[in-house]
Amino acid sequence: MTHTVAPGSPFPSDHLSTALADLKRQRPLVQCLTNAVVTNFTANALLAAGAAPAMTDIVGESGDFARIADAVLINLGTPTPEQREAMVEAAAVCQETGTPWVLDPVAVGSLAVRTHLARDLLQFKPAVVRGNASEIIGLCGGAGGRGTDTTDQPGDALDAARTLLTDHGVQAVAISGEVDLIVGATDHGEVAWHVPHGHRYLTQVTGGGCALGAVIAACLAVQADPVEAAVAGSVLWEVAAEHAAARANGPGSFAVELLDQLNSLAPEALASQGAVTCAEVAL
Amino acid sequence: MTHTVAPGSPFPSDHLSTALADLKRQRPLVQCLTNAVVTNFTANALLAAGAAPAMTDIVGESGDFARIADAVLINLGTPTPEQREAMVEAAAVCQETGTPWVLDPVAVGSLAVRTHLARDLLQFKPAVVRGNASEIIGLCGGAGGRGTDTTDQPGDALDAARTLLTDHGVQAVAISGEVDLIVGATDHGEVAWHVPHGHRYLTQVTGGGCALGAVIAACLAVQADPVEAAVAGSVLWEVAAEHAAARANGPGSFAVELLDQLNSLAPEALASQGAVTCAEVAL
Amino acid sequence: MTHTVAPGSPFPSDHLSTALADLKRQRPLVQCLTNAVVTNFTANALLAAGAAPAMTDIVGESGDFARIADAVLINLGTPTPEQREAMVEAAAVCQETGTPWVLDPVAVGSLAVRTHLARDLLQFKPAVVRGNASEIIGLCGGAGGRGTDTTDQPGDALDAARTLLTDHGVQAVAISGEVDLIVGATDHGEVAWHVPHGHRYLTQVTGGGCALGAVIAACLAVQADPVEAAVAGSVLWEVAAEHAAARANGPGSFAVELLDQLNSLAPEALASQGAVTCAEVAL
Repeated sequence: MTHTVAPGSPFPSDHLSTALADLKRQRPLVQCLTNAVVTNFTANALLAAGAAPAMTDIVGESGDFARIADAVLINLGTPTPEQREAMVEAAAVCQETGTPWVLDPVAVGSLAVRTHLARDLLQFKPAVVRGNASEIIGLCGGAGGRGTDTTDQPGDALDAARTLLTDHGVQAVAISGEVDLIVGATDHGEVAWHVPHGHRYLTQVTGGGCALGAVIAACLAVQADPVEAAVAGSVLWEVAAEHAAARANGPGSFAVELLDQLNSLAPEALASQGAVTCAEVAL
Repeated sequence: MTHTVAPGSPFPSDHLSTALADLKRQRPLVQCLTNAVVTNFTANALLAAGAAPAMTDIVGESGDFARIADAVLINLGTPTPEQREAMVEAAAVCQETGTPWVLDPVAVGSLAVRTHLARDLLQFKPAVVRGNASEIIGLCGGAGGRGTDTTDQPGDALDAARTLLTDHGVQAVAISGEVDLIVGATDHGEVAWHVPHGHRYLTQVTGGGCALGAVIAACLAVQADPVEAAVAGSVLWEVAAEHAAARANGPGSFAVELLDQLNSLAPEALASQGAVTCAEVAL
Repeated sequence: MTHTVAPGSPFPSDHLSTALADLKRQRPLVQCLTNAVVTNFTANALLAAGAAPAMTDIVGESGDFARIADAVLINLGTPTPEQREAMVEAAAVCQETGTPWVLDPVAVGSLAVRTHLARDLLQFKPAVVRGNASEIIGLCGGAGGRGTDTTDQPGDALDAARTLLTDHGVQAVAISGEVDLIVGATDHGEVAWHVPHGHRYLTQVTGGGCALGAVIAACLAVQADPVEAAVAGSVLWEVAAEHAAARANGPGSFAVELLDQLNSLAPEALASQGAVTCAEVAL
């Protein structure tokens, strides 16, 4: 990845098509320890994108599974005591084995149990943290949002994202919003990409953000650079959402169409110039 | 609300359209502690209706969340030990802060653990109890139904509903059936409304009743009168179901259409004379 | 059932249509202790097929419910400690009362907790074991698959299936694959049926196999012969999948169509000669 491109440069679209093609060809095994609300939708999103999901989140199994998984998602949406223990078990194995993992700090900052848990999990060095702006801020000590809703814009979370990169060894932070912002550290300093895709229906389907975390984990399994994986996962998800919204009559049919589009989206469709406008931005 | 209308008087349709418009404008935060089977569908139903769902049901968080929620649903469909404790935590905060909450006593009467739990929760004075006839009867000491299926008709549960109103401080009881019956206490005595809407497909989609409890909670957040909120939520749900059924080819497509219809149903559509026939009935 | 038919003989199609008609007429109560990922889809599949699902999996209730259930499914996809205890409670009641039950050993062989649990549960003599080839092999001491994915073909699991029949009192083993294989013991020796139906979309919808286990449980409730019930449930599921795939644009719309097709599939459609080609095979 060229980290020396000037602001405004487009994200290399062939990297997007390669990521999607690799997903479909390699069928990576993605372990998800995620919330009870979205576990079905998340598994279906991974299947549609080409990955093999496994929702193994039991103490005594989650660590063993992390040893064979190609990537892991830990999402804090409904963290029962059993799941909290299983998350630490899986994250510790990931750190030991170098398996890349994504932390999704749902509603962190505004709720105590998960906020403590998220900070404990940070020590196991997730490759990517994905959340809305209030969650990223909450993870770094800020106040958090209104439940799962953000009360901040992606740009407001830049300082918190930098803290995650510099103090906690996170390699990429994906901040969801109307325009997603992906921030990462490189040898040449920080890099940030705008992903100006998606559709408001994604905010009207529960798990619209949670499943994106899983898709980013799937991309991490096939692409070594966490920043590229986060961009590729975000573009794949948001562009599929645009295609789905064009065929939907509301949030119910949108969720169905989104799975169909994830399944049928051709790698070439992401590679064509103009179809994806994902530009590096100045920090 | 005019509680002195004669039997046969229609429910004021402008109250229905106001409730729906308020839902979409205020986007109330509705906390749900609900069963594992329907948590996804319930969250999506709330999003489609215009509310902001939060499925926070963890001990140590559920009470804190109830302090910021605009209304709370407690549904006993799959009450794990963790959830049972979290339900008591949330309900106690609701009583303390005056946050209105709905109790949905799924399969109460026929199963021991939840029956004891439901009776414990009653002391925290839910504003509304919603269930099928056997569940309402079971909550008051009767035998309950066949699993989640009722073996009684709404009218059979009138005595039990009265017990909830007079002995337990419940303000409205919503008894689901082919024709829903909403019973409440007023300064002038009891009032009951028939909601002769809906479609049999609602009984062929899991959570067809559970999600209604959440929609009633959302209406409680925007309408002070629990009887009005229960009627408004029921009408919104059942009329959306009628629109959805007209477009569906079976229970699968019905569930998808129902979310689309909840999202697109215009407040004016509920206000038009004749579209909704919801009449007060003699007790 | 005629167990003396020659290899190549078709499964009696009138038995299929009778099973489906009985499901819709008797509406059997099917208790499911299943994984968090698929509980919603499983309940909806049972409702669409004509059964009454109850997802009762709480300690202190699961055994009581098993006493009134017509059949029980125990699926090990996400076995929390609470669920593990509730599964033993339900299975013990099933053995005591003679209620037929299905064991679905999800990912058994590759994960420790559920592998021990599955072997414990075997002592309560499930009527049917349903799984992919690697799970059937894993249940009998083999290595298991790659998470929930099989790394073996149905035919590879024949020895393991025989072990379940002869050593553990299982009456039928349903091995899912591109062509499902149903193996059972009869007074005249072993019998095996091929079910060459289905669609690859079933592997792209999470719970495509888990819900089949529930449908087989529903068939067990209306058909005394476990081999016939397993064949009937498999044919019903796989033929509905074929109809659904013909109307779908991807895995999202396929899952919706599958519920619609399960609901509308007429018993006569299964009885017509040629529509279903399910043949006994030599062992």
